[in-house]
Amino acid sequence: MQTTMMDVPLSLNHLLERAGRLFAGNEIVSRLPDKSLRRHTYGEFHRRTRALASALQRLGLKKGERVATLCWNHHAHLECYFGIPAAGGVMHTLNLRLSADEIGWIAGHAQDRFLVVDDVLLPLYRQFAQLHSFERVFVFPFSGQTVPDGLDDYEALLADADPDGFEYAPHDEDDPVAMCYTSGTTGRPKGVAYSHRSTVLHTLVASLGDFWGLRGTDVVLPVTPMFHANSWGMPYGAVMMGVKMVFPGPHLHPDDLLDLIRQEPPTLSLGVPTIWMGLIQAYEASLAEGSPNHGRWTLPRGMRSLVGGAAVPEALIRAFDRHGIWILQGWGMTETSPVCTISYPRAELRDADDDERYRRAALAGVPVPLVDLRVRGEDGADQPWDGRSVGEIQVRGPFITGSYHAVPVEAGKFTGDGWLRTGDVASVDPLGFVRITDRTKDLIKSGGEWISSVDLENAVMGHPAVAEAAVIAIPDAKWGERPLACVVKKPGQSLAAQDLDAHLLGKGFAKWQLPDRYEWIDAVPRTSTGKFWKLKLREKYAR
Amino acid sequence: MQTTMMDVPLSLNHLLERAGRLFAGNEIVSRLPDKSLRRHTYGEFHRRTRALASALQRLGLKKGERVATLCWNHHAHLECYFGIPAAGGVMHTLNLRLSADEIGWIAGHAQDRFLVVDDVLLPLYRQFAQLHSFERVFVFPFSGQTVPDGLDDYEALLADADPDGFEYAPHDEDDPVAMCYTSGTTGRPKGVAYSHRSTVLHTLVASLGDFWGLRGTDVVLPVTPMFHANSWGMPYGAVMMGVKMVFPGPHLHPDDLLDLIRQEPPTLSLGVPTIWMGLIQAYEASLAEGSPNHGRWTLPRGMRSLVGGAAVPEALIRAFDRHGIWILQGWGMTETSPVCTISYPRAELRDADDDERYRRAALAGVPVPLVDLRVRGEDGADQPWDGRSVGEIQVRGPFITGSYHAVPVEAGKFTGDGWLRTGDVASVDPLGFVRITDRTKDLIKSGGEWISSVDLENAVMGHPAVAEAAVIAIPDAKWGERPLACVVKKPGQSLAAQDLDAHLLGKGFAKWQLPDRYEWIDAVPRTSTGKFWKLKLREKYAR
Repeated sequence: MQTTMMDVPLSLNHLLERAGRLFAGNEIVSRLPDKSLRRHTYGEFHRRTRALASALQRLGLKKGERVATLCWNHHAHLECYFGIPAAGGVMHTLNLRLSADEIGWIAGHAQDRFLVVDDVLLPLYRQFAQLHSFERVFVFPFSGQTVPDGLDDYEALLADADPDGFEYAPHDEDDPVAMCYTSGTTGRPKGVAYSHRSTVLHTLVASLGDFWGLRGTDVVLPVTPMFHANSWGMPYGAVMMGVKMVFPGPHLHPDDLLDLIRQEPPTLSLGVPTIWMGLIQAYEASLAEGSPNHGRWTLPRGMRSLVGGAAVPEALIRAFDRHGIWILQGWGMTETSPVCTISYPRAELRDADDDERYRRAALAGVPVPLVDLRVRGEDGADQPWDGRSVGEIQVRGPFITGSYHAVPVEAGKFTGDGWLRTGDVASVDPLGFVRITDRTKDLIKSGGEWISSVDLENAVMGHPAVAEAAVIAIPDAKWGERPLACVVKKPGQSLAAQDLDAHLLGKGFAKWQLPDRYEWIDAVPRTSTGKFWKLKLREKYAR
Repeated sequence: MQTTMMDVPLSLNHLLERAGRLFAGNEIVSRLPDKSLRRHTYGEFHRRTRALASALQRLGLKKGERVATLCWNHHAHLECYFGIPAAGGVMHTLNLRLSADEIGWIAGHAQDRFLVVDDVLLPLYRQFAQLHSFERVFVFPFSGQTVPDGLDDYEALLADADPDGFEYAPHDEDDPVAMCYTSGTTGRPKGVAYSHRSTVLHTLVASLGDFWGLRGTDVVLPVTPMFHANSWGMPYGAVMMGVKMVFPGPHLHPDDLLDLIRQEPPTLSLGVPTIWMGLIQAYEASLAEGSPNHGRWTLPRGMRSLVGGAAVPEALIRAFDRHGIWILQGWGMTETSPVCTISYPRAELRDADDDERYRRAALAGVPVPLVDLRVRGEDGADQPWDGRSVGEIQVRGPFITGSYHAVPVEAGKFTGDGWLRTGDVASVDPLGFVRITDRTKDLIKSGGEWISSVDLENAVMGHPAVAEAAVIAIPDAKWGERPLACVVKKPGQSLAAQDLDAHLLGKGFAKWQLPDRYEWIDAVPRTSTGKFWKLKLREKYAR
């Protein structure tokens, strides 16, 4: 027998039309380069997005052609998220933190036809313009300045278009809507192409109560960039539920974010641990009498905060909780749309004490629905979920990539039975909490035993005098590899190697697991997406 | 270009395996016929469900074959929800409130191969056993009694099976998993067949924060029957999020439900308005000093309650809110999986007063994601969403039926462009709230003007002395049709026609809209699913 259900494809266009009909009065707020706020309704968003789609069709954009964006987080970027797919195109977000050479290479590899670029990012665009020739470049006058001669004005494009006469490009649910290149620290970046289907499914799953818990009465502050892993997919979820969004624009300094939080208090915010560390340090410093920022900020109690992109130290979770903000840690990759696991309060832990709650919150979390996750040992066998057995995380599901755009399938990235090999090493406990011990390449093998650099650096960051820390492997004649800790002290704090050794021994580390050396550094270098860039530390210290 | 995403089908089996892995320690509670509680873990649920699937495969169940259930709400019924599809079969829930003849006809039409039946329902089974011959009948020993000779024991079936060796039947996402016949008040019931895809999508959508808002820490009491519209799909959502479930078994009397609520306080409950009316009346009566039930019950403040299946009177919403329980009204049909709209607190109404909040809550609500909804006027044109223009609700989406099982597509049930014609008449306001004015067949046409029987009966039910009321059309020589109100008084209350007339005039009804007659009745007759059965009233009064 057959199902009697209608055959209706999943579609981003449905979410856009829904938002225009149901949420026309809700707000979208963008912070402009001059730090003023631009207010925008969902009704305007709907109309402008249809205008963009209509204009792209009139320009002859064909099904599946790429339109690149080089933009900060703001309302016009959101228009691209929905307007480019509405016209049948694929939105390709260029990562503005990459080198100009790399951006140019990526645009060329993706064969991007058009570009939408913030006027404040034109200097960056000019650095790679000779590497790839866009047919048209639309400048979004983000700063309010007149668009330079010879370039197209995004606002004029929209003003000339006909949103009412627009008709959506027909599509299947497997047709691509967006594209993002991985920020690999080795080798060339590789493109992942999300579909209507994968995007809608990811949006539905990530928005569920235990994860993002999105409700129409929420106010979301997405600090994670829309130019990398689609701001974790939050813009799609916010539009689906009609959630007020507050976009920070180019202003990501802790003081700026705290100002914005005071002006437009969010109920949900998302960012990477490094930015969140700076934010809580600036905020706590402002509480001191005599601080120049004393009384300037308030953190909204009850706000949830999604933090991911790198391991979240328990100390950071405790610090925010002191101010009534609960951090939900997530783990994922560009390849996984990206949400794979989220650490949320479980019914089984209802009676757990604070230490246990914090310990769980500092784990990568539990696989979300539609994500199959397994941990494969070196012998190729599935590891039991006993909280101890370690292996590589492999994942499978309808919003996980099974290949890369326009490159042959790489040996080693996928298993024979079709699972993605993530390169992350983890154990899973009986409640399903994933504990990432390391990136495969960040494990330290000392005398035949593995030492987790992530465990070590999280423990070091738990010391009250430490601002941040990264641990890398250094070659050792006797042991093969040994750990080295690069430590950033908090301002005005003094700290010696023996203090940290004693701290680590107190946390249960064995003597042989302690770092051989501590380097006192000013800051941990970051990748384009704000993660610790251990490669740079290895280049400096591990030779 | 093409998406790079994996091609992984949506599957109920994924949800079952997920629950077994992540939520093994959480509880499923079933109330037995003797009113004792049976406790069950998700781990046991997972193992028993796989055992059921394994046993069905060994019995030679083939892909797409139907296995019927004739069961109350309990853990074994939940095993059928997942175990029958796991084996490749289609779970067909028989509605035990229908007449034996009708049940037998439905089982024959669906060509059900096996039956799972509660022992306490064997007398009902025997009444229709001669109408359809099941190959095997498995008796679930719900009461704890020995299964009669000549019938198979469900527990023995599971005990003999091998849950560890079980392998899921391969499937596509469009393969059917469950089947439900509509309870049409006219004509033969018609079968709707849900697929893996439609069920997973409906589960994801309905579980979202603004609707069911399902979280792992919830405790759900599904009073709505699992034998009709799948208890609104809640069992699937609960398993997806690992939610504790409390099944009421056969005990649906208000006193029994209140006892169960005291024993296992839910955070979320679901039921039809008529049962909820009885529940709040029994509870409020128990508050009076001297009541025989004084002090017997408590209602858990903060509980959410999903109420649907028929219009929810504003008076009922206010009554529950007095005790800290918020009612979320939903609207849908067997044909729509069933959730189509839900009335939830909207950001735009943050500053609304109580009257406005109650007024909105008494509407059918806002279309959920993936449901396209339009209102077609008599001229075939889409009505504007202005809160006034009325027409037939038509819906479309991936969890809405596009045909019926094994019958030719009925002219008039679907539009030429593939939308389901619901037969419900409504307006939609600018915020997207659907206001159902009537079933097409329940509208009263008086002198060329429509009178809404739903509006009238809701207003009558708002009178403090009224327990419940139903309004029907009676033929009238002069006006064509006129309204007649059938009213049930609360115990010990006296009430006259002029009291209700005055009450209605005070609510803004025009004089010509008032009922011509009031009939004082003992109870409003109910359909098998607890809705007002106006057909019966018409038979009695409208001739």
